[in-house]
Amino acid sequence: MKTPYTLYDFLPSGNGYKVRLTAKRLAIPYRLVQMDITRGETRTPEYLAKNSNGRIPLLEVPGRGYLAESHAIIGFLAEGSELIPTDSWARAHMWQWLCFEQYHVEPNIGTARFWLHHSHKTAAELGERLTEKIAKGHEALAVVERELEGKSYMVADRFTLADIALYAYIHVAPEGGVPLEAYPGIRAWLTRVAAQPGHAPITEA
Amino acid sequence: MKTPYTLYDFLPSGNGYKVRLTAKRLAIPYRLVQMDITRGETRTPEYLAKNSNGRIPLLEVPGRGYLAESHAIIGFLAEGSELIPTDSWARAHMWQWLCFEQYHVEPNIGTARFWLHHSHKTAAELGERLTEKIAKGHEALAVVERELEGKSYMVADRFTLADIALYAYIHVAPEGGVPLEAYPGIRAWLTRVAAQPGHAPITEA
Repeated sequence: MKTPYTLYDFLPSGNGYKVRLTAKRLAIPYRLVQMDITRGETRTPEYLAKNSNGRIPLLEVPGRGYLAESHAIIGFLAEGSELIPTDSWARAHMWQWLCFEQYHVEPNIGTARFWLHHSHKTAAELGERLTEKIAKGHEALAVVERELEGKSYMVADRFTLADIALYAYIHVAPEGGVPLEAYPGIRAWLTRVAAQPGHAPITEA
Repeated sequence: MKTPYTLYDFLPSGNGYKVRLTAKRLAIPYRLVQMDITRGETRTPEYLAKNSNGRIPLLEVPGRGYLAESHAIIGFLAEGSELIPTDSWARAHMWQWLCFEQYHVEPNIGTARFWLHHSHKTAAELGERLTEKIAKGHEALAVVERELEGKSYMVADRFTLADIALYAYIHVAPEGGVPLEAYPGIRAWLTRVAAQPGHAPITEA
């Protein structure tokens, strides 16, 4: 039997969740090594030797080495599967939304959520910087809401990595102070994504 | 003759430069439409109909439509070329470094440079937020410097999209208040990248 992949991860992480959702959907087994990022466990010399950027998720592939960055990992795991469109124009748009997620969703909605959950500061103490993250989070959601008009999924009218990546932080946006009431298209899409085979909640190992 | 691609771009943009470098290297002709992002030209209703995210670079493909996000565009343009490794593990690492660039280089070095050039504020006026961007820019460069130890290029020991994407903002890091003196490996690599066929300076149309 092949030695399975090892995933270094922190269960509350939306970035880690993207990898877990992809692996579960594709029935790819993995061994989970939990790293508490709030206690500096990814900044030890031992971990930095695995990933010089000191972050999770990190995939260890037996006999090959390590792969970092959630979207690179899910692109690797899903290669040749139904989660990546075979048409090059559709696949380019899948990457467009992965890039959009990483630049406009995660650093705003994901960071606001991280601050509120793990910084041990209140919204009032976080002040203007939190307000700015929340405002930019809403700007990103408005773009996604417009994109979903008349569509079931983000790209090629089917469930792809773009849906997995965007779902990861958008479904927990309220935990970052970004409520979803104003986005009926997004809320209906969240329900569709959660009904996909292999779906699991964010903190499930 | 085929109608060429149209690239909506702002010449000082490192993100646009990634696309221009890729197209030039691969001898892909394109028609350039310059948008002055400092005057809101990408936020008009007409432009938002092309890209609801209101940003450059944006690629228009005749008969297909629009593609946004620099890394999605260069992935599309370079498909099947020597700029993307054919080995899946190497290709995954190319995407790892594209993601790293987008999360750790562009928002720090690129933003610091944009602020200093286009915000009409001095470093003193930008204050702590600029200092933070510069510090995070140095953190990102330290990761790249370590990765380049004993290597000529970032991935698979050859020139790929990872080099193009990282070059775009790193070679102008000093314009963002991030000097490169402490990174001899990066400086040697910048020289190698600039010697590649099809290379052109950042503001060349």
